[in-house]
Amino acid sequence: MKALRLEDKRLFLDAGFPVPSVEGEALIKVIAAGICNTDLEIVNGYAGFRGILGHEFVGTVVDAPDRTLIDRRVAGEINAGCNHCRRCRQGDARHCPDRTVLGIKGRDGAFAELLSLPARNLVEVPDSLTDDEAVFIEPVAAAFEILDQVEIGNRSRVCVVGDGKLGQLIVRMLATTGCHLTVIGKHQHKLKLAAAVGASTVTLDGAPGTGLAPAAGAESDLAASNLPDAEHSFDVVVEASGSPSGLDLAFSLVRPRGIVVLKSTHHDRTSLDLSEVVVNEITLVGSRCGRYRASYRR
Amino acid sequence: MKALRLEDKRLFLDAGFPVPSVEGEALIKVIAAGICNTDLEIVNGYAGFRGILGHEFVGTVVDAPDRTLIDRRVAGEINAGCNHCRRCRQGDARHCPDRTVLGIKGRDGAFAELLSLPARNLVEVPDSLTDDEAVFIEPVAAAFEILDQVEIGNRSRVCVVGDGKLGQLIVRMLATTGCHLTVIGKHQHKLKLAAAVGASTVTLDGAPGTGLAPAAGAESDLAASNLPDAEHSFDVVVEASGSPSGLDLAFSLVRPRGIVVLKSTHHDRTSLDLSEVVVNEITLVGSRCGRYRASYRR
Repeated sequence: MKALRLEDKRLFLDAGFPVPSVEGEALIKVIAAGICNTDLEIVNGYAGFRGILGHEFVGTVVDAPDRTLIDRRVAGEINAGCNHCRRCRQGDARHCPDRTVLGIKGRDGAFAELLSLPARNLVEVPDSLTDDEAVFIEPVAAAFEILDQVEIGNRSRVCVVGDGKLGQLIVRMLATTGCHLTVIGKHQHKLKLAAAVGASTVTLDGAPGTGLAPAAGAESDLAASNLPDAEHSFDVVVEASGSPSGLDLAFSLVRPRGIVVLKSTHHDRTSLDLSEVVVNEITLVGSRCGRYRASYRR
Repeated sequence: MKALRLEDKRLFLDAGFPVPSVEGEALIKVIAAGICNTDLEIVNGYAGFRGILGHEFVGTVVDAPDRTLIDRRVAGEINAGCNHCRRCRQGDARHCPDRTVLGIKGRDGAFAELLSLPARNLVEVPDSLTDDEAVFIEPVAAAFEILDQVEIGNRSRVCVVGDGKLGQLIVRMLATTGCHLTVIGKHQHKLKLAAAVGASTVTLDGAPGTGLAPAAGAESDLAASNLPDAEHSFDVVVEASGSPSGLDLAFSLVRPRGIVVLKSTHHDRTSLDLSEVVVNEITLVGSRCGRYRASYRR
């Protein structure tokens, strides 16, 4: 089959990759796959992955131990646990220490004609969703993971740092809570999309070296002092910019004893002023994949 | 009066410093004062403070608007709020944006014959405490702050990284919860003190560049892989080593979805692998000063 492979930080199209065949798993024909910022980070060396990238997909089951699954249109939980450890027995394969992760860790991904996943990872896509919508189930679930971790209600003042794809999904997810929502980004046309679902928007000037665009290892002068009335005012700030400077900005925006949710993954170490975290008693919450069944029904 | 002053990263004894005199505040004769790691960080440039250092003290009131306070033996909350803002009205002067902080921010401290604090900051020291015990009220309150922020019970597996003064106080505070307690440090004689209150202890070898001793900006090979069975096993890890490498160690010790409490303040930026925080969905909680009335009665 055809597959887009990553080896030694180089991507190349392999026309003769063997069809994945794992005893007891389902085989899925990929209809559509999404490109995530994590994929770009992996190409830059994050997670040390080699093989077929891609973890956002919708597809059709072509083979499975349970024959009734065949021809079903599905999305798939990307974490495949060992099924035996304490985490797995508690239903949390997402944190199984021996898990494989589709297109990220020990398991070939969705940038191919076919992929393999355990049948228990699959969720059937309802007819009400188009293929182009269903391919977003994985990142939408990741956005909803925030609500599993942090209490956000209609009185919460929430700020999203970053107006890219992940930021946009998080904004739409947060809009369902009725919270007071602000989005900070650099792109007028992207901020307009956020404003359309009711968010206030703040445009950051993209002065060289101070922007929110990914700049590995860069420190920036980006500060909430450029945002009048915003400094230390938000109950919750979600960092979804993919930039190291985004977290410094988040620390300066959140109120004392507020919560910063960290969504971005980086392949580099990040330099931080942690005295802000201590002095303002900030809580930083790492947030990754979410539960599918909760998210695709909303 | 005599006072130990800090100017431009230099400490010197000033024999003729003016007696502090603030309208409406109490004047306290210092009996004893403690030296905190934060003082050492301030000397190295943290917080940009100049003036008289020192924020751990016990003293006797020599003047106050309320004459009944005179001659009382007191400790004092070190944060003096504006008394008008929303934070102060909610009783949380510790996070007032315009606060001064004894010996740390905008207010001369306890390494002097006399100091000034608002009368509402003072707590009377019970006769059951000696002066040498009472001088620890401030750091003990800071240790108890952890229990205001994180739920720790007798089934919690908790690890303290660092066997210094703050670590020792935190160990004694945590011992009151009945939790399963482990302390990691470099000093046999200090670890023995922790063992005496029921903690399991782990000695880290002090290989050059890999130790827990403060090493500004240093990255280390310190890893939980040196601690068999400890990797990703603790519900809560408290970082109290004062070393940048201590936080990396904490991230490798805490279980997925566990909590890391950050107690140390540093004057430098810290380099971190934040992908661990995201992938394992770790919660990092900054923790500073605690409530006095809750702590000195325990």
